[in-house]
Amino acid sequence: MECLPGFREFYPEPLPHKDAWSADARQHIFDTWRSTARRYGFREFDGPPLEPLDLYTAKSGAEIVGQLFNFVDKGERAVSMRPEMTPTVARMVAAAERAYKKPIKWFSIPQLFRYEKQQKGRLREHFQLNCDIFGEADLGADAEIVALLIDTLRALGLTEDDFVIRLSSRQAWQRFFASNNGKPDQEYEFYQVIDKVERETPEVSSARLKLLGIEYAAVQDFIRAGEPTPELAILLENLKARGLGAFVKVDYYVIRGLDYYTGVVFEAFDRKGEFRAIAGGGRYDQLVKLLSQGKVDLPALGFGMGDVVLLELLKARGKLPKFTAGVDVVVLVEEESLRASSLALVQALRDAGRVVEYSLTPAKSDKQFKRAIELAARFTARVEPDLDGTKQVRLKNISTRSETIGDLSAAIAATA
Amino acid sequence: MECLPGFREFYPEPLPHKDAWSADARQHIFDTWRSTARRYGFREFDGPPLEPLDLYTAKSGAEIVGQLFNFVDKGERAVSMRPEMTPTVARMVAAAERAYKKPIKWFSIPQLFRYEKQQKGRLREHFQLNCDIFGEADLGADAEIVALLIDTLRALGLTEDDFVIRLSSRQAWQRFFASNNGKPDQEYEFYQVIDKVERETPEVSSARLKLLGIEYAAVQDFIRAGEPTPELAILLENLKARGLGAFVKVDYYVIRGLDYYTGVVFEAFDRKGEFRAIAGGGRYDQLVKLLSQGKVDLPALGFGMGDVVLLELLKARGKLPKFTAGVDVVVLVEEESLRASSLALVQALRDAGRVVEYSLTPAKSDKQFKRAIELAARFTARVEPDLDGTKQVRLKNISTRSETIGDLSAAIAATA
Repeated sequence: MECLPGFREFYPEPLPHKDAWSADARQHIFDTWRSTARRYGFREFDGPPLEPLDLYTAKSGAEIVGQLFNFVDKGERAVSMRPEMTPTVARMVAAAERAYKKPIKWFSIPQLFRYEKQQKGRLREHFQLNCDIFGEADLGADAEIVALLIDTLRALGLTEDDFVIRLSSRQAWQRFFASNNGKPDQEYEFYQVIDKVERETPEVSSARLKLLGIEYAAVQDFIRAGEPTPELAILLENLKARGLGAFVKVDYYVIRGLDYYTGVVFEAFDRKGEFRAIAGGGRYDQLVKLLSQGKVDLPALGFGMGDVVLLELLKARGKLPKFTAGVDVVVLVEEESLRASSLALVQALRDAGRVVEYSLTPAKSDKQFKRAIELAARFTARVEPDLDGTKQVRLKNISTRSETIGDLSAAIAATA
Repeated sequence: MECLPGFREFYPEPLPHKDAWSADARQHIFDTWRSTARRYGFREFDGPPLEPLDLYTAKSGAEIVGQLFNFVDKGERAVSMRPEMTPTVARMVAAAERAYKKPIKWFSIPQLFRYEKQQKGRLREHFQLNCDIFGEADLGADAEIVALLIDTLRALGLTEDDFVIRLSSRQAWQRFFASNNGKPDQEYEFYQVIDKVERETPEVSSARLKLLGIEYAAVQDFIRAGEPTPELAILLENLKARGLGAFVKVDYYVIRGLDYYTGVVFEAFDRKGEFRAIAGGGRYDQLVKLLSQGKVDLPALGFGMGDVVLLELLKARGKLPKFTAGVDVVVLVEEESLRASSLALVQALRDAGRVVEYSLTPAKSDKQFKRAIELAARFTARVEPDLDGTKQVRLKNISTRSETIGDLSAAIAATA
């Protein structure tokens, strides 16, 4: 009864073997995602990991079903484990938007599920930071969401040498398509070709573009020129004012495959180009209306960042901290006659917020001290035998090896 | 396409309506669970929310399937969303225990799923804090796990007037059953009767006990006497040494229905008896061996605490903090000519860790200030127009209304 293929188990560090997934690294990423989103005034929400199947087929069509963990539940409902968060958040916003001041800035960290074809290392679940702004059509919102994406990666220790945000614009391609006499009903197909032009051979792209009446050379020239549209110029100006100009570049290769984007689109990549996209997003002003069956019409934009490529990048660039148990104090119980007062010391230190370990059972002194070293504890503490009826604590700073004797409050202060 | 029945959506505060679930309250509970478990040196782990169906039927028999969200996936595997965490952690421990020093102290906060019969307010998912110790047979471990349970509730603001841990012992009932000439093959059935004796009428319990050859009066006398077994006496002594004696009482009504407990068992209840159990657990020394098909034999014990009853109790006792957006500074952009330098100020404050809000678009001064009040921000800040080429920041403490003007580093220091 092994774990299902494509699913992960997360272990505490030090890891049992080199391919194990680290629960500590995951928590480090989640904590950083959460604290950065909060600095930007984003508020956390969550929805159910199981949803009506219709929620996804309404947005993505019936062909999505082949990639879902879907089934019929005991109440005869067609349901699916969530493959993405956007339909859920659109429903929640549509139901409650009147109660919130605009713009609504929300984030969540859902686990998402896709029944991908099985390949080595290919996962069927991942965690994703989702950040969205609802109710603001101004480009100031686009700048805010791109700045949040940059600062999330910076907060994880990555620099402008490690990653870049490739900025593009659906409007730019719309105008290009129109001015090259593209047919409106082939616009979405055109976007699909552009989305792949970086990875396909020139021959394939050229042939596909020809069917749409578009010259491959014109596309190449447009991408090479990389002239910012008026919208992108405003966005760049805003990011430069924040001192974030070095983290972005205009790059019309990016268009985002999904058909619901309507404005600025962007993707984050590692500078060396060794990994798949770290994150991606853009503006999707029509989607809330579509998903709420016309009930609520709010401009919207956002991005998603998965935990898997991110973790690979952090590892490759040496940006993960060394994870330990974070033990502040190991209380040494050197005589069983002192166990009761040692337990009182353990409790007092924990009540003061310290992470405290001790041996649950009688153990030799040197073994207890050795364990403190293994745990990378900052201090050891032990109860001094009563001489005058006052309990004293002998505290040892493990890195300096210096010892002090004092009362409990001194021990609490010294281990802060 | 509403949310499925029995599933929850979590909204940021202030909530859109009074029955909405609070994402902030949930995060408050998770943060407290996590920090308390860490103070005790417990390490976080997680497993997949979807598991092979066998994992649960092996432990609980085929009858469990009626309560599961189970299905056959696209690879023809019989799978189930996890209804509990114990089989997962037992598998993970069995696979990796050699890499970890004993005792292994682990916690997790999984979302769990049960297809419960639909009733008003009855949920089909909840979150649960799971804390377990593996590899320690000594009662010192039982005391440590009960102390952690107590401190988790204390960390949420609950006191000895709010809750009590009812301690009991499977061995106590084992000995009672044997000394009353119970037949070994009816022992589990006997536990089932005891598990319900508090809620059933004396007539029903009496009749059920008679079938097992046990006198109802003997059971009543045993519970009333409440004499601690030698094991419970040691446990009580240990908890008293920590100053936690007032949080526990011996109560043989508690036995825990599940058949895998082997020693001390316990449940946490509110003192007023208004709610279902807040948490429950005990020692299950045979389960790792059973679930690992005999591969690994480790004594174990632990508890689970759900988020739903806990939240009800915290609400009823007024122990939830008031949740706000936690905004430190609202940067006021009073003239659009100052937007670029205001964005630089926003960025600098956020880089210093402050939670910063500002108007993404041009807005009237008084509207911006009103928004700062609504957000319960601690400060407003605005860029002073350049006089001598040095950027200055005017900072206003919203509660004292006092204003200061200084450079950026002064503003960062003042808003710490």
